[in-house]
Amino acid sequence: MGPSGALAGRTLGELGEAAVLARIFPRLPESPATILGPGDDAAVLAAPDGRYVVTTDTMIHGPDFRLAWSTPHDLGWKAAATNLADIAAMGAVPTALVVAVAAPPDTDIALLEGLADGLRDGCETLAPGCGVVGGDLSSSATLMIAVTAFGDLQGRSPVLRSGARPGDVVAVSGVLDLAARGLELLFARGVDDAGHPDAARALAVRAEFPAETGAQLAPSPPLLDGPAAALAGATAMLDVSDGLAIDARRIATASGVRLDLDSASLESDLSLSGGEAHALLATFPPGAELPVGFRVIGKVLAGEGLSVDGRLYDARGGWDPYRDGAVGER
Amino acid sequence: MGPSGALAGRTLGELGEAAVLARIFPRLPESPATILGPGDDAAVLAAPDGRYVVTTDTMIHGPDFRLAWSTPHDLGWKAAATNLADIAAMGAVPTALVVAVAAPPDTDIALLEGLADGLRDGCETLAPGCGVVGGDLSSSATLMIAVTAFGDLQGRSPVLRSGARPGDVVAVSGVLDLAARGLELLFARGVDDAGHPDAARALAVRAEFPAETGAQLAPSPPLLDGPAAALAGATAMLDVSDGLAIDARRIATASGVRLDLDSASLESDLSLSGGEAHALLATFPPGAELPVGFRVIGKVLAGEGLSVDGRLYDARGGWDPYRDGAVGER
Repeated sequence: MGPSGALAGRTLGELGEAAVLARIFPRLPESPATILGPGDDAAVLAAPDGRYVVTTDTMIHGPDFRLAWSTPHDLGWKAAATNLADIAAMGAVPTALVVAVAAPPDTDIALLEGLADGLRDGCETLAPGCGVVGGDLSSSATLMIAVTAFGDLQGRSPVLRSGARPGDVVAVSGVLDLAARGLELLFARGVDDAGHPDAARALAVRAEFPAETGAQLAPSPPLLDGPAAALAGATAMLDVSDGLAIDARRIATASGVRLDLDSASLESDLSLSGGEAHALLATFPPGAELPVGFRVIGKVLAGEGLSVDGRLYDARGGWDPYRDGAVGER
Repeated sequence: MGPSGALAGRTLGELGEAAVLARIFPRLPESPATILGPGDDAAVLAAPDGRYVVTTDTMIHGPDFRLAWSTPHDLGWKAAATNLADIAAMGAVPTALVVAVAAPPDTDIALLEGLADGLRDGCETLAPGCGVVGGDLSSSATLMIAVTAFGDLQGRSPVLRSGARPGDVVAVSGVLDLAARGLELLFARGVDDAGHPDAARALAVRAEFPAETGAQLAPSPPLLDGPAAALAGATAMLDVSDGLAIDARRIATASGVRLDLDSASLESDLSLSGGEAHALLATFPPGAELPVGFRVIGKVLAGEGLSVDGRLYDARGGWDPYRDGAVGER
């Protein structure tokens, strides 16, 4: 029997929500924070220090992914990774997820199983101990994965965007341009002659450029560096999701400072503009010992906005999914 | 200026995510549980007794609602109410929501504002003190609202589905058949001659049957009776979402008992089969003083399954959205 066993090829509509959930839940990782897991009206989770960190993010077929490019495992992995990166960017340790999936009735159960396996492998690889504690399965014309993630600050203060001070160093953990390069490659070579996403061509691109396409389709943000940065005294931190330029300006605005970046420390032009890097951008007091994953890319100055090599940088250098058009949308 | 002011008639795609969120967040209710609210990578919430209750549920255009029948305010209200009912059914006090909305780029900002107002009014009316602490706005071909709700057990044990014991009484708070009757009315009279949902006809039905259609489109579950039931010693409890017959069997199965219902205590046949009642079904030890909203509708016996007036009731008597077809889907 294959991974789907006797139900291979059956659809969500044929089996019904209850039967599908019964197959999915055993595949999902458990969390030691679970006091009461799936199966009742709600789950109960532990908050040892009397607080919990919460974030939510959604992936939608069309704007956020194409099934011609992403495997179900990729989708589960990325849905976990992007949400857990927001938890880590607060300096918290990811503890649990709840996952709402909406899928067309003709969706093969193997897709949902692959998605569950991706959630599990993403959690186990990037944030060991983080489990899936609840979920929801709905019918929709458009495939959608909405994740809400939770984290534990372990008694520490959250690291906000607003704490950067003149004199701090600016540092990043993770690669800034690889995911954007992967997307460029998929747009250029993972499409058919009419420009539509094409599975066979995408597979060829993935084989030739595994690092770039992997960073885009199944990213591995340096989640452990979030709590490590908090312990090292980080004054501000965020998850670089819309491009370094946009996200660095967010810290500058929230903190009332200027961030000045050193172009020689950046991989390429795409480092400033490329979305979905899911690197951690943080500021540290002068003299702080940075966690091993971080490298210095600039400094915090008095003033406002963003500069590169001392010159004001006001190009947008990033993307807003509504203004820039949907990725892979026909 | 109208409620949308200078931006009336503008769309999500024209304004972009950031500008829309800036208009939406001030409309949303705040929660005293908020340690850190919207604006950073994640929110931080208080868990005074070291635990938090979590549930997630999604509403999708087509299977779960039709814009021809529901106003944006209805959608926000119902998305809050249905999730908060799951929190209350654990015996917890609802504290906060995070809300992920996916909408087509041509969505008028007035729809998103109406949705936010419905979330606010639903929280303030049904669960005062419950606030919206975070969210996400995405582009999708299909309008979707995914809510994750949080609650505080205030030091009590959660009320599970598994605690009913022979000799307990079965009681319900809320109306069982009204929401289903409202849906029947909308299907019968809120459609055009081809059977498609029709806004003008739905308005006429709403004017003539406000209680029935209101229970379906903007339900008011008795949320305060959830914690009240826990304080009164409830042994098992759930939110009646798929019909009393299906949900009573869930308590019977989880508890290893039989539930026997008294048909004379039910409003109509629809009380057993009708979905989306969002009443609270609970069992209490013999002699317990029931909170004022609850009425006795049966008793717990040794055995298994569900009976009505002592006779085994094995009709499905409820619905699974995948098996029964999508509501209002063309």
